[in-house]
Amino acid sequence: MENSVFENIPEQPSLSKKEFKALEPELRHELVTMQQELRQAGAPVLLLFAGVDGAGKSDTVNLLNAWMDPRWILSHAYSKPSEEEAQRPPFWRYWRDIPAKGQIGMYLSAWYSQPLVDRVRRKISPEAFEEQLEAIAQFERTLEDNGILLIKVWMHLDKDAQQKQLEELSSSPETEWRVKPGAWENWGLYSRFIDASETIIQHSKKAGTPWHILDGSQQYVRTQQVSSLLLKKVKERLAEGPKPTPALSTKDWDSSMKTSRGALGNMDLSQTLDRAIYKQEMKALRRKLVQLQHKAQVNNLSTIIVFEGQDAAGKGGAIRRLVKGLAAQQYQVIPIAAPNDEELRHHYLWRFWRHLPRSGRVTIFDRSWYGRVLVERIEGFAEDAAWQRAYEEINEFEAQLTRSGTVVCKFWIQIDKDEQLKRFNLRTETPYKSWKMTDEDWRNREKWGEYTDSVDDMVALTDQSNAPWTLVAGNDKLHARVKVIRTVCDQLEKALQNQEATKPNT
Amino acid sequence: MENSVFENIPEQPSLSKKEFKALEPELRHELVTMQQELRQAGAPVLLLFAGVDGAGKSDTVNLLNAWMDPRWILSHAYSKPSEEEAQRPPFWRYWRDIPAKGQIGMYLSAWYSQPLVDRVRRKISPEAFEEQLEAIAQFERTLEDNGILLIKVWMHLDKDAQQKQLEELSSSPETEWRVKPGAWENWGLYSRFIDASETIIQHSKKAGTPWHILDGSQQYVRTQQVSSLLLKKVKERLAEGPKPTPALSTKDWDSSMKTSRGALGNMDLSQTLDRAIYKQEMKALRRKLVQLQHKAQVNNLSTIIVFEGQDAAGKGGAIRRLVKGLAAQQYQVIPIAAPNDEELRHHYLWRFWRHLPRSGRVTIFDRSWYGRVLVERIEGFAEDAAWQRAYEEINEFEAQLTRSGTVVCKFWIQIDKDEQLKRFNLRTETPYKSWKMTDEDWRNREKWGEYTDSVDDMVALTDQSNAPWTLVAGNDKLHARVKVIRTVCDQLEKALQNQEATKPNT
Repeated sequence: MENSVFENIPEQPSLSKKEFKALEPELRHELVTMQQELRQAGAPVLLLFAGVDGAGKSDTVNLLNAWMDPRWILSHAYSKPSEEEAQRPPFWRYWRDIPAKGQIGMYLSAWYSQPLVDRVRRKISPEAFEEQLEAIAQFERTLEDNGILLIKVWMHLDKDAQQKQLEELSSSPETEWRVKPGAWENWGLYSRFIDASETIIQHSKKAGTPWHILDGSQQYVRTQQVSSLLLKKVKERLAEGPKPTPALSTKDWDSSMKTSRGALGNMDLSQTLDRAIYKQEMKALRRKLVQLQHKAQVNNLSTIIVFEGQDAAGKGGAIRRLVKGLAAQQYQVIPIAAPNDEELRHHYLWRFWRHLPRSGRVTIFDRSWYGRVLVERIEGFAEDAAWQRAYEEINEFEAQLTRSGTVVCKFWIQIDKDEQLKRFNLRTETPYKSWKMTDEDWRNREKWGEYTDSVDDMVALTDQSNAPWTLVAGNDKLHARVKVIRTVCDQLEKALQNQEATKPNT
Repeated sequence: MENSVFENIPEQPSLSKKEFKALEPELRHELVTMQQELRQAGAPVLLLFAGVDGAGKSDTVNLLNAWMDPRWILSHAYSKPSEEEAQRPPFWRYWRDIPAKGQIGMYLSAWYSQPLVDRVRRKISPEAFEEQLEAIAQFERTLEDNGILLIKVWMHLDKDAQQKQLEELSSSPETEWRVKPGAWENWGLYSRFIDASETIIQHSKKAGTPWHILDGSQQYVRTQQVSSLLLKKVKERLAEGPKPTPALSTKDWDSSMKTSRGALGNMDLSQTLDRAIYKQEMKALRRKLVQLQHKAQVNNLSTIIVFEGQDAAGKGGAIRRLVKGLAAQQYQVIPIAAPNDEELRHHYLWRFWRHLPRSGRVTIFDRSWYGRVLVERIEGFAEDAAWQRAYEEINEFEAQLTRSGTVVCKFWIQIDKDEQLKRFNLRTETPYKSWKMTDEDWRNREKWGEYTDSVDDMVALTDQSNAPWTLVAGNDKLHARVKVIRTVCDQLEKALQNQEATKPNT
């Protein structure tokens, strides 16, 4: 226990009920005033609690809830994942609940709970524990980088205090149920618990957002401390603004690119496919896809397919041919347009997390999160630092998908400028297609060069082995459609084989 | 089979692929033009498919999806409820997915599937079947009454045609998986299937939205027919507007009231409680509540608690005292303010359906769906017909909650005008409470009489034995808080006893 972070908690003068009651009005006033300022500034706050069972986390959340304007505060306490939650990446349920602009979200038993318990119970190795902490650090970083003020409070009790607390709870029928199953067993493993907690705290200090460690043994003291901390942090934020991880400055941008660019320039757009061969191949491939997807469904393997490409590149047509043989229950097409009001109040990835499928389904995004590094970059909707950071955030997002067993296919369909003009004109002339043409399409066309550069960067920086890009020559629609469906079949087949190979022998 | 609705399907001239292709451009143009008109008018459309397996429902949805602007069309196909869905009333998953203004939603295997299959397999009696159809009719009525254009398409195949279709699907490895488990068994029960279908169709004709019965044997004919039907119905709607169930005219309003009014006038607001007794009672009641809720959780019994009352009546304080002993995982408080943009685009009940808890939880609404017959009535935000209809819609909504095993407690906390003024002044003077006061509170106060009338109506018309109102004298806060927690305990205790009594002996 030497050098333990828990040894250094500054001792607090105790606070009697009467003393606390004297402080209360001023504290409450400051808190509700702060809430109003937060709303005006449109800043989201995430107050995360962790620590020793019985250290008063739940009571503190209840009290803060009682003191503040309920319309702008929300609390979430997690227990065992539901079936729907278990069918998605572990962070899905937390993403769903992240606070919107102006809200304060308070989180109990959240993303640190399971790794901590698993490590204490020796269900995971130190290495696996570190890995999970690294994933958490990345999650927290993307929240903070995108403007969420994250405050982490670790509520501590020493072993004797925890014993006393558990005994007190057990002694009354009103509270004994609050002693969770396994709580005494955990108490018996107290030193392991402290070791694992130290690892968490050290990891956060090194790799991300540091913890504020508070002594939880005195009710009034801890309430006063959490309130003051919240007030202080929000004031700092409102004064200084967020401090996101510095992204590359645009000046450094070119030289920093480790991978080769110019992928689009190397494409052969002259590839064509004869209609007779197309029909034959499509029939065979569609049959194959239907069988593979049926197998994927049985094996709970999800697929996410992303379509990007210039206007009129043929995304919609490729999607329709892809899903033609599938049953409506098996797939969902999500067209992505400008975010709505509720989406704008959240982290930019929130609206994509929302749509993640239950296992065994196919979800097709007609445009996607790559808008961040395409249209948002080019039109200046995202600041330089924001879109430059997005490559890594997107890689991490997709890594979570593939780690949880989802197949991720990404298509960029490329046409040349002449072909686009031809299709624009055809759309304008065809009554049932003219709705597809807007002034924006013509404006985007004028930025052809900027789009080419952005796509080159996107492919170079987000082409990962787990979630590879497929560049599709789209001048010939038949060629493009076959290439798309063949690639999906190949990736799905490979994933099913991998799944088969790693299946435990039961 | 005499007089069968299926005997009278008008025969359609057949359509060759070539003939269909000649019609297609015009049909598609009309459909996308119609979509734009629908968006401008802000009208939602719900296109529901049902009928014989293999009659081409899924293909028709796919094709319409392919033809129309994907941003304003959505399709939902349902299979077995997930665990989260099974833990809520059966209509929950359909409510989640209802189309917003300007959207066309297409629904497959939706609310008629389970009752139909259950009746065919003789899992439910004719009476239970009728009951379920009645619940469906009510659901459809509230959708239509609130502006959703509901179009119901029944796709028919005769027994031979179905056999042919199933054989065709079974013959190819590409399609054989689409023959669902039990499909042949269902085919063997074809005449039962037709009988039950007739019951559905007759019920809809009598009690709600009639079906359009189409022959599904010819691919091009059925596509053309569905498209034309959709176009025709939307055109009619855009020309004429919705035709909601006529509600009582305001003139008839008074005389139609079957139950006695004036509940508020009969209240004794002078009730008080001594602080010493309060403390003692609260302690005992809280202990009881905690034990009951723990038992409710174990038994998957959910509780929904609604708080209404004048401004400053003490709703927030009563809620805080109520939840004080509960763990954060066990309950959620949902404060209801003005709807946001996404909510405004939906049926007014949609935002409440969204928040229904998984089983075993307590959900507290600080204000609720009763806003429809209180503030929306008084301020004219809802038309007369809309709020007059709402009493029945709300009763039906709550009946669905209680039928699925949720305990529903509803509190109106009543204070008198002097007490309100006292509290308003106190709030204004207390820095940490002044945020609670807005100009709206003073404006509402001027409408005291209107609120009293509206509350009397509300209580008279929505006080149901399954979901009773409790009127709480709120001038004395201590009295009010004890009354609330005692009532919740009583209702919860009774529900647990009922559950115990009806539990099968396993």
